[in-house]
Amino acid sequence: MTNDTPSGEDSLIARYFKPLATDPGAFGLVDDAAIIKAEGCDIVVKTDAIVEGVHYLPDDPPEGIAKKALRVNLSDLAAKGATPAGFVLTLALRKADESWLSAFARGLGEDAVSFGCPLLGGDTVSTPGPVMISIAAWGRVPAGRMVHRFGANPGDRIMVTGTIGDAVLGLEVLKGGPAATALAGDPAARELLIGRYRVPQPRNALAACIRDFATASMDVSDGLAGDLAKLCAASKVSAEVDVSRIPTSPVAAMLLSRGAADIAAMISGGDDYEILCTVPAVKREAFLAEAGQAGVAVAEIGTIAAGAGRPRFLDGQGAEISLTRLSFSHF
Amino acid sequence: MTNDTPSGEDSLIARYFKPLATDPGAFGLVDDAAIIKAEGCDIVVKTDAIVEGVHYLPDDPPEGIAKKALRVNLSDLAAKGATPAGFVLTLALRKADESWLSAFARGLGEDAVSFGCPLLGGDTVSTPGPVMISIAAWGRVPAGRMVHRFGANPGDRIMVTGTIGDAVLGLEVLKGGPAATALAGDPAARELLIGRYRVPQPRNALAACIRDFATASMDVSDGLAGDLAKLCAASKVSAEVDVSRIPTSPVAAMLLSRGAADIAAMISGGDDYEILCTVPAVKREAFLAEAGQAGVAVAEIGTIAAGAGRPRFLDGQGAEISLTRLSFSHF
Repeated sequence: MTNDTPSGEDSLIARYFKPLATDPGAFGLVDDAAIIKAEGCDIVVKTDAIVEGVHYLPDDPPEGIAKKALRVNLSDLAAKGATPAGFVLTLALRKADESWLSAFARGLGEDAVSFGCPLLGGDTVSTPGPVMISIAAWGRVPAGRMVHRFGANPGDRIMVTGTIGDAVLGLEVLKGGPAATALAGDPAARELLIGRYRVPQPRNALAACIRDFATASMDVSDGLAGDLAKLCAASKVSAEVDVSRIPTSPVAAMLLSRGAADIAAMISGGDDYEILCTVPAVKREAFLAEAGQAGVAVAEIGTIAAGAGRPRFLDGQGAEISLTRLSFSHF
Repeated sequence: MTNDTPSGEDSLIARYFKPLATDPGAFGLVDDAAIIKAEGCDIVVKTDAIVEGVHYLPDDPPEGIAKKALRVNLSDLAAKGATPAGFVLTLALRKADESWLSAFARGLGEDAVSFGCPLLGGDTVSTPGPVMISIAAWGRVPAGRMVHRFGANPGDRIMVTGTIGDAVLGLEVLKGGPAATALAGDPAARELLIGRYRVPQPRNALAACIRDFATASMDVSDGLAGDLAKLCAASKVSAEVDVSRIPTSPVAAMLLSRGAADIAAMISGGDDYEILCTVPAVKREAFLAEAGQAGVAVAEIGTIAAGAGRPRFLDGQGAEISLTRLSFSHF
């Protein structure tokens, strides 16, 4: 072995991941650590991991797995008002499968470019168990401007981006549940829902708008109901949500109308990766206009209320919808 | 469920990890992300993961597992000349075992305090496989002062901290190899070696000294021979090492003298977590004096040479020692 013959691990990193390490602070992945320049900003840091068989299915396409692993972190940065700056990757693999790895690296590289979030370093380890991908991502916000879970005030309007519930329905399609049966003759609709489960669409285009208007913000990853409860608990407030105003996709709306989907399951299921935020009533119009400018669909779904009660989800007639669980929990 | 009744996952985080999140940027772990203040410094980032059955043994004490997970990252920060500033933790668990978790959190908390490296956030996920702990840690260096793998020049002296080879011998003791047999009657010696495998002693006290004197630096985690080859490759130089000057512990020296340990295996085994660095010959004395002031033992083991050949390891008679492998690789 000479200096030029790296170990299997180093060779794997050089082949698949070095091309992604375009930031000068990554030093081409040949050093032991990377540099992030703060340039007068605060650095926002977030870590999220996904596990084969828990957060994705073993035969999901590797490009999408890579994108999901990065995007669950990008979604948090967006909700905090931060601009992506870079990430580090821990990849635990049973074996170095070339075709899986090259597709995984391709997906990761595409997202690193399109979200402006370069790979800065990583660790590749062997495991006898399921594949696990842990990413820690950094973003920049002007000093003191990170938007928190706390900060919502009574009277603030509750806003949510995109549509809610598609991902949990997509998982149901993959698992052959009622949604799969209802969509047996409609492959395009099935693919749309599956795509929402496999590859989240984080709302990073909304970050500046969140910083400028939101009193509190978080991403919806474990279920809208549970995540709103967390935002309310952190802000020491309660909330009332008009369930009929929760944005749903045309496919989900059709499934709801046919009784093949359940709104309670959709708002307590996970994997939406939309932004949930609160905006003062007087800034409502300006926020919606700016979000429109940013190209992100936003819906107003309710109002923050005083008190410490759990958020109430009301149907079109003002009756409270009963939720057996608020969100996904690992334990 | 009310706002005050967190999920199993949140409850686990609140009980075990919130007490460790003492940094104001951690927001008590109730937010989705943390803040790092750079204050005119560069932020150095590093991630390293450890997997049950790969980097530690399933019945290793949880306090030590936590310390190892953090210290493998702290060791990199030290080698880069950075002062620890904080870390995020991904913990993949089969089940929420209270006694394991409380011991793990206790160990992690002790190290967070003693190394000044607070927990800033994390993600706890379930896995059907082995426990995996991934930590991303960062530190601060004065702008532009991170010490790289590249930068070593011909004539520079090669320095290494502490002792080399104890950890790989400790693993051999745990696995019942020749070192275990040779030390059958000496439990204190066995414990010393096992301790070096289970809980590394990162040389963070040397960080400022590395910044002030080293031309190149990295930590020794995969084996001294392989890691020196990496440093040389990055610096486009070669090296000659006098193996008789490689520092060994009294126990390791005794095993070597009895033929129960092999120096080639000790310098290509992993888990030392010492610092390997190069220092210009004219700064040699000053470096050794400052390292002594910092309380870190340092030995000079060789000299950087021109050329691209692999580093040569010479015995006391100047004959090259043959190494069948240079370091540990996962794949």
